[in-house]
Order: sequence, then structure tokens, then C-alpha cells
Amino acid sequence: MKLTAKTLDIADRGVLLNRNDARNIGVVEGDRLRVMNHANGRAVPAHIDMTDVMIEPGTIGLYGPIHLALAVTDGAEVEVWEAPKPASLEFIKKKMNKGKLLREETRAIVNDIVSDNLSLLELSAYVTANYINGMDMDEVEHLTLAMVETGSRLSFSNRPIVDKHSIGGVPGNKISLIVVPVIAASGLKIPKTSSRAITGAAGTADLMEVLAPVEFSAEEVQTMTEKVGGVIVWGGATNIAPADDRIIVVEYPFKIDARGQMLASVMAKKFAVGANLVVIDIPVGLTTKIADVAEGRKLAREFIDLGERLKMRVECAITYGDAPVGHTIGPALEVKEALAVLEGATEPQSLILKSLSLAGIVFEMAGKAPQGEGYAMAQELLSSGKALAKFKQIIEVQGGDPSVTAASIPLGEFTHVVNAPEAGYVVNLNNPSLVSLARLAGAPQDHGAGIQLHAKPGERVDKHQPIFTIYADRAWRLKLAVEEGRRLMPVLVEGMVLDRIPNEHHIG
Amino acid sequence: MKLTAKTLDIADRGVLLNRNDARNIGVVEGDRLRVMNHANGRAVPAHIDMTDVMIEPGTIGLYGPIHLALAVTDGAEVEVWEAPKPASLEFIKKKMNKGKLLREETRAIVNDIVSDNLSLLELSAYVTANYINGMDMDEVEHLTLAMVETGSRLSFSNRPIVDKHSIGGVPGNKISLIVVPVIAASGLKIPKTSSRAITGAAGTADLMEVLAPVEFSAEEVQTMTEKVGGVIVWGGATNIAPADDRIIVVEYPFKIDARGQMLASVMAKKFAVGANLVVIDIPVGLTTKIADVAEGRKLAREFIDLGERLKMRVECAITYGDAPVGHTIGPALEVKEALAVLEGATEPQSLILKSLSLAGIVFEMAGKAPQGEGYAMAQELLSSGKALAKFKQIIEVQGGDPSVTAASIPLGEFTHVVNAPEAGYVVNLNNPSLVSLARLAGAPQDHGAGIQLHAKPGERVDKHQPIFTIYADRAWRLKLAVEEGRRLMPVLVEGMVLDRIPNEHHIG
Repeated sequence: MKLTAKTLDIADRGVLLNRNDARNIGVVEGDRLRVMNHANGRAVPAHIDMTDVMIEPGTIGLYGPIHLALAVTDGAEVEVWEAPKPASLEFIKKKMNKGKLLREETRAIVNDIVSDNLSLLELSAYVTANYINGMDMDEVEHLTLAMVETGSRLSFSNRPIVDKHSIGGVPGNKISLIVVPVIAASGLKIPKTSSRAITGAAGTADLMEVLAPVEFSAEEVQTMTEKVGGVIVWGGATNIAPADDRIIVVEYPFKIDARGQMLASVMAKKFAVGANLVVIDIPVGLTTKIADVAEGRKLAREFIDLGERLKMRVECAITYGDAPVGHTIGPALEVKEALAVLEGATEPQSLILKSLSLAGIVFEMAGKAPQGEGYAMAQELLSSGKALAKFKQIIEVQGGDPSVTAASIPLGEFTHVVNAPEAGYVVNLNNPSLVSLARLAGAPQDHGAGIQLHAKPGERVDKHQPIFTIYADRAWRLKLAVEEGRRLMPVLVEGMVLDRIPNEHHIG
Repeated sequence: MKLTAKTLDIADRGVLLNRNDARNIGVVEGDRLRVMNHANGRAVPAHIDMTDVMIEPGTIGLYGPIHLALAVTDGAEVEVWEAPKPASLEFIKKKMNKGKLLREETRAIVNDIVSDNLSLLELSAYVTANYINGMDMDEVEHLTLAMVETGSRLSFSNRPIVDKHSIGGVPGNKISLIVVPVIAASGLKIPKTSSRAITGAAGTADLMEVLAPVEFSAEEVQTMTEKVGGVIVWGGATNIAPADDRIIVVEYPFKIDARGQMLASVMAKKFAVGANLVVIDIPVGLTTKIADVAEGRKLAREFIDLGERLKMRVECAITYGDAPVGHTIGPALEVKEALAVLEGATEPQSLILKSLSLAGIVFEMAGKAPQGEGYAMAQELLSSGKALAKFKQIIEVQGGDPSVTAASIPLGEFTHVVNAPEAGYVVNLNNPSLVSLARLAGAPQDHGAGIQLHAKPGERVDKHQPIFTIYADRAWRLKLAVEEGRRLMPVLVEGMVLDRIPNEHHIG
């Protein structure tokens, strides 16, 4: 059937058909069309959406990616046929039926994910089936390699290439801003790609963006790393392992993170940047992704196994995840704290210890320091100012201002201090509540928004002593966070009355 | 945040936001907004789609259902907030984690399905989890009742009310056109809702539509049934158990039909029309949904169990499903064949036997005939012409022309006869291939399109004797079907050469 083309800016590999035309062609929602531009011979498959009104019979709405692929002008004629379903649907069904996917089957699925040949509905079935039925280590390896093959890759002439990853779940985990420059200051190369926060208050990419641009192609990441030894960029812009970005969208509503997919996603990104020495931070705690140390050790073993299959050396650090790292949550606040440490601040200890420990593990893995002396080496690179100098080179190569100092970083102009209602010991910081508050205040979009903690668990506070400050860039955002803060109680002081229920029966 | 409203005719309970506004509000794809029209105080939750271009910052695109619910005029101001995720997402996750859903949890999910509060992605996770982890009979009962409660219902003052269902998978299964009038001719009431074909060549609703309108409200179905004793309508228009229509969309790409969902979907529709006597046709065969008789018996037991829980009497007939019922496939061809039987034709035997057997089971269940004599009663209603007279009343009450005869039904004007390439016995009819051909020829959209079989398995044909005819309403459709017919070989004659591979190396 021949139809007139009309472009619709929708970021899906689909077309919008009038319901009458669909009936005529004999297709229903869930089918595919093959759409051809006779002017240049290009033809692509497309999902079908239907409408009674938005598109006239005889016209076809081409969504952005289809329009691009066909290079068709509005008003021109395209021809359409019903197209067969992709074979990957059969492979997804095999996984739904508890089958083990072969390398080629996983590759077909990942290819179709990356080229948007699977609808969200279909991708959701794949992710759900993986979550429920799991994957064995062969399948995880195949998924990792398929994710690598369907994206951009770096290729350095000299090894080792170092990488570092935290599996997340702890607010305030700004350690990459210290670990990367310390490692690069030793002469090792670390092309660090990182994520933006989805449910968190600030991803490493959100932090770095306070200081410099973070969107670069894979090629630019390689060039910058060769020049100064390290970068901190947003992985989403590099086209490295892009399948993962699609999968994350589907996992989001259920907050699931299927083990095999998580392993594949992390390791694909490390493999694709050419890393052969990898340290993985596994925060353990009731409010993180890994509930206890035994579970953390199991995950660590899986990372190490997968690394061996991929010829990468992996070590894992099980870390404490039940309280924020350092005293700040939110982009500018976290950057200020990390930069102060690079400038010589001797606290917060939780931040300094964790960063130097991870860097030390890398130095021992790389043979830069004898076993047991990696930490000291990292400490020397920090205290000598070499790490700070290296960080300024990284900021500069990414196009930021290297003259930046911790003191010069602007925080949100609207603030609200929360004071202890009673004297006592701080007994609990609730991570999810702290993150919710920071997000309500505007993080990560508003760089100045977030939380500054004045007391951490075990510290004694007096009545009316400040326990935390909320920062916001916009007054209405601060108001939202303050209101919700009363309900969420993210910091608990021993003996504090959590709520008071008035007796509503008055003596009349 | 306040935004200007703009209506978009998209049949999804969503809104389209400029990516900048989304960032400002702090929402990502997969989140929900609460959208409020201050002019009338109405507020509804909505899914979020994002665009860089289609919608300007400050404007919000409201899809059809949201626009309807808010009753907002284009250009007016609406206010939006981030809305919490529905609790049903947690219940779906529970099922993903192999949990057993409570009655209230299933009810919440079905409510959100029917009110479009779940995205297709989320619904897909639910259906996939049900498919993989299964449901026990309590969960099936709760799902059935939730499907009933979220739709329209009939309520007759007198019982019994009869219903009949075929679980499908056999082409040419036009028996409802005979079973319904035979049952109604006995004085029993049978308000039959039926489906349109999705992957088949003609659903019962597609067949009936050749003779009369099939789209009625539940109220109209009740009135018509009270008047003439029976109807044959399209269930999709009645709003009976509408959750099922949503679930089918999600099952379509993978051609799955999770057992528990199938049971619930069938029985919800029977329960909602008030039926208390139900006969279920379970065709078994390699190309149907149920592979063998043992599996068919197991399914029958489940239908009967579920019926007992719902206080409905259910009997099941296990029928032969490896060949088409009768000799025709496609709307007009099937109607012509069924109408001829009502008019007194003595074949095809497969159609007559099956129809009268099912009606006979109902007469015995209802106490209209003694055990073992239901078939004879059905036969008498057919041969006396009472069933034909009743069918004409049904056609008339639905707005069709009761003077219709089998001879007067127009078939597709474009035909192609396929002859036996060799003499021999017909050894196989391939059901899926026959359905594909009928669909390529235009069925079910083109009423005249389909297949007329001239020989069935076991019959002897001479060389060049016609074995089947393809009918189409449009010449290009016929061409498509004929071309594909050569490849699919839907009818096999013993000794026939299936393909000839020429030797492409010529002696040069």
C-alpha cells in the first residue's frame, strides 16, 4: 500500500497509521510494517501505533528515527507492507519458557534492543523473564559481549587500563572525584564513564558536570585519557554499551536490577573502554542493593568469574553502605566536599578512607605498590597535591575552569536548617529519606540543591543544635522539601518523639 | 508547575512533556504526573512521554483519555505535580518474585489495567510474570472476579442462562452460528459474546457481522436476549470484562496465553453475562492450543473447578482440532456453510455433528433432555426448521436482514482454484498455512475472502482435480495469497513432489 509521509517527532522506531489503513493492510497493534522510500531505495521495519483522528487515511506518521533512516520528505510517498516479526521474539519466549539462550540468540536480542526493533512491551517481557528465570554465567558472558559489540569501543595501545565502579545505593558516594585523579596521578590511565542519577540525588556524571562538560564521544574520551591520564564523563553520551540505557528504562518502574543483567551491564562498560584492571565497590547495608556481607561476597565472586572469562582482572571492595559517604548529598555540595579533600581537608574520614582504599587496591593490582602498601601510596598522591593537580588537568581537558576551588563552588541560595528537637545521640540516618529530600529540593537537576549533614550516627547533639541543612536553588523547591522533611524524619535522635497524636475527643 | 494544555489524539492515558519541563519537575520516563484542571477541580494521574520538539516548554500535550477526564479546553492552564506510583506495581513485583497475590492485590492490578493506569511496559511485566510463575486456583478465582467487577454485567431475572465457549485454534469453527439458534429455539437463553479474529481468519463476531451489526452495549445484549432468547455479538463493544482486551494486546507479540489468565478471561465473560450453565469446546491437536487429550482433560478439570468456585455448572467437550471444521475458512464462506446447514443441508458432517453434540450437552445439563438424548433433541430443532427460524429472529433483533439465505451471501469475486498436482489421497491439511492464506487473501477484514476446501484428509483426488479455491474481494489480495500458497502447500496429496530443486550447474 502507498501512503503519504508525515514526520512526527516521537523518539520511537514506529509509525502512526489511521485505523482504516491498518485494517486494509491487515495489521494490528504489535505487528510491524516495512516502510520503503522509493526515491532512494531505503526500507526499514517499524512498530505500528494507531489513531482514528491524528492521521488521515492515506497518510502515515513517521516517528523521528524512521524519518531519519528513510530520509523522506514530508508529503512524499512511501510504500508499506506487513513485515515479519523479528526472530528475537522467539528467543525471548525461549527465556520465558526457562530455556538457556545461545550466544547467537542473545546477540540477536541485543541487536534488536539497540536498533529499537523491540517495543517497550517486548523489551519488558525480556527483562522480566531474565529477572525471574535468571541467567547462568555463559549467558551473562554472552550478554556482556553482545552489549560491547553493539556500541562504541576504546582501544588504547598500552595496558594496563584501569576502571572503577560502584554498584550504587549509597547517597553521597562522591569517591570517584578523588579516586580517579589519585589513580591518574600515579601514571595509570582511567577513562571513567559514569551515570547520571535516575532515582538517586546525584550520579558521578551529575557531580562532574558542576565542574566541566561531561558529554563526549568515545573517541574524545580516548584522546583526553591519552592526554591527561583520566576523565570523568557521562557514559550515556559515549554510545558505549547503549543496550543498557534501554534496559534501565524498563527496570525503572519496578526498581529491579536482575543480577545477570547488572553484571553484564557493569562489565560491558569496563570491557568496552579497554580496561583490564577493575575495582568494584560493593556497598552493603539494609538500604543498599546488597543486604549483607555474605551476599556481597557472592556478588564479588561473580564479578571476578566474569572478569576471568573476559580476561580482565577484577577485585572487589565490600564497603559500609548504611550511612551516606561524607556529610553531603547533592551535586554542588558533594563536589565542594570532594574538592576540599583534594585541597588538603582532613575530613570527612569516611570519604577519605574509602577513596584511598579503593585507589590503593588498584595500585597493588597494577604492581605500582607492594601488597599492603597501596593505601600509603594513594595517601602520598593526595597529601602531596599531585591528585589535585591531576584533577585540574582533567577539568581543563573536559573544558571546565581549572582555577576552581572548593570555596568558590556556589550552593543553593535557599536554605533551611533542621535542629535537634531533643538532646541525644544520633541513632539513625535514613538513606532513602535523605535522597527523597535532596530530590524534592531539586537535586540532581538543580546543582545547588541537596543536604548537608551536621551530625552522623553516634554523635551527640544538644537540643536545638543543627542536625542538617537543606539547600535549594528555588524557593518553592525548598518549601516542598521542608514540608516533606517533617514527615520523613531522615535523621533520628535517640529519645526523640517521632510523632504526636492529639486526642480529638474534647470534653464538651 | 503550571502548563498550557494542548490535546493530542493518542489513545493512552498519558501526557507529552517537553524534556526541559520534565527535568524541572524532576520526573523521568516511567514516572507519573498528577494533572489538575483548576477550572473544574478535576485531577487525574498520567504517564509521561517526553519530546524535545513536538511540545514547547510551558505546554503539555494531553492524550485523548486525559483530555476527556479533565474536560479541559486547549490553551487553558493545568497544574501538574509528580504523582506517586500506583501500589499495583508492588503487587506485580510480588508476582515477579514468585509470591501469591491476595484478592485485594489482584483487584488493584485489574483496576489499574482497566483505567489505563499501568503502561504497556508495566502490564507486560505482569503478564510475563503470570506466564512464568503461574497462578493457583485462588488467584485465578480472584482474577476472574476482578475482571467481572471492572466491567459491565447482565442480570436476568430467570435462570438458567446458558453460554458456550471454544478455546480456539481450529480454523473454520463456525459452530456458534448453529449452536446458539438451536439452544435458543429450545427456550433457553444464550447471550453469546464472541471475539473478532486476531491471528485467525474469522472470529465468531466477524462471522455474525456478515449478517447483522455486532456492536452493542451490555444493556442492549440483555434486552435482545430477553426478547428472542439469544444473540451473537462482539464482546469488545459490551465493556464486559474489559481487562481481558488489554491483556490480549500484551500477549500478542509472543503468542502466549497463560493458563490462569485464559481460564479467568473465559469464565469472567460467562460470569458477567449471568450464565450458570456453560459448555466449553476444547479442540485438541498438534496445531491447536492443546496438544493431546490428556492435556485437554486437565484443562477441562480446571474449568469445572473454577466453575464450582463461581457457582456455575461447566461441562467440557474435547473435540478434534487437527483439521478445519467444515469445508470453509473466512467470514462469508463460513456463514454460507452454517446457514446452509440451518436450511437443511446434510453436510459437512464435521460441522453438524460438532454443533449438535455441544447443544445436546447443554440440553442434558439444563434438564431439557434426559441423559443421552440431548443430541436427538438438538437434531430435531435443526431438522424441523425451528433453529433457522430462531436464527432469523436473532439476525433481525440485531438489525440484520432476516430474509437472508445461504445462496444470497456474496463471496469474493476474485478466485483461484488450486488443483491436485498428482492423483492420490489427501494426507494432510495444514491449519496454520490455511489461516495464513485466508488472511493474505483479506480475511477477516474483507468478508468475501477465504478458502473453500474441496477435499479433506483421507479423500482420494485425481490428477488436476480441484483441491481448494482461494476467494478474495480484491485482485492484489488474491495475487498475494496465490503466490504464498505455492510456498505454504496447505493441502498435501500423498506422493506429491513438494519441491523440485533444479541443478544449476549446466554443462557448458
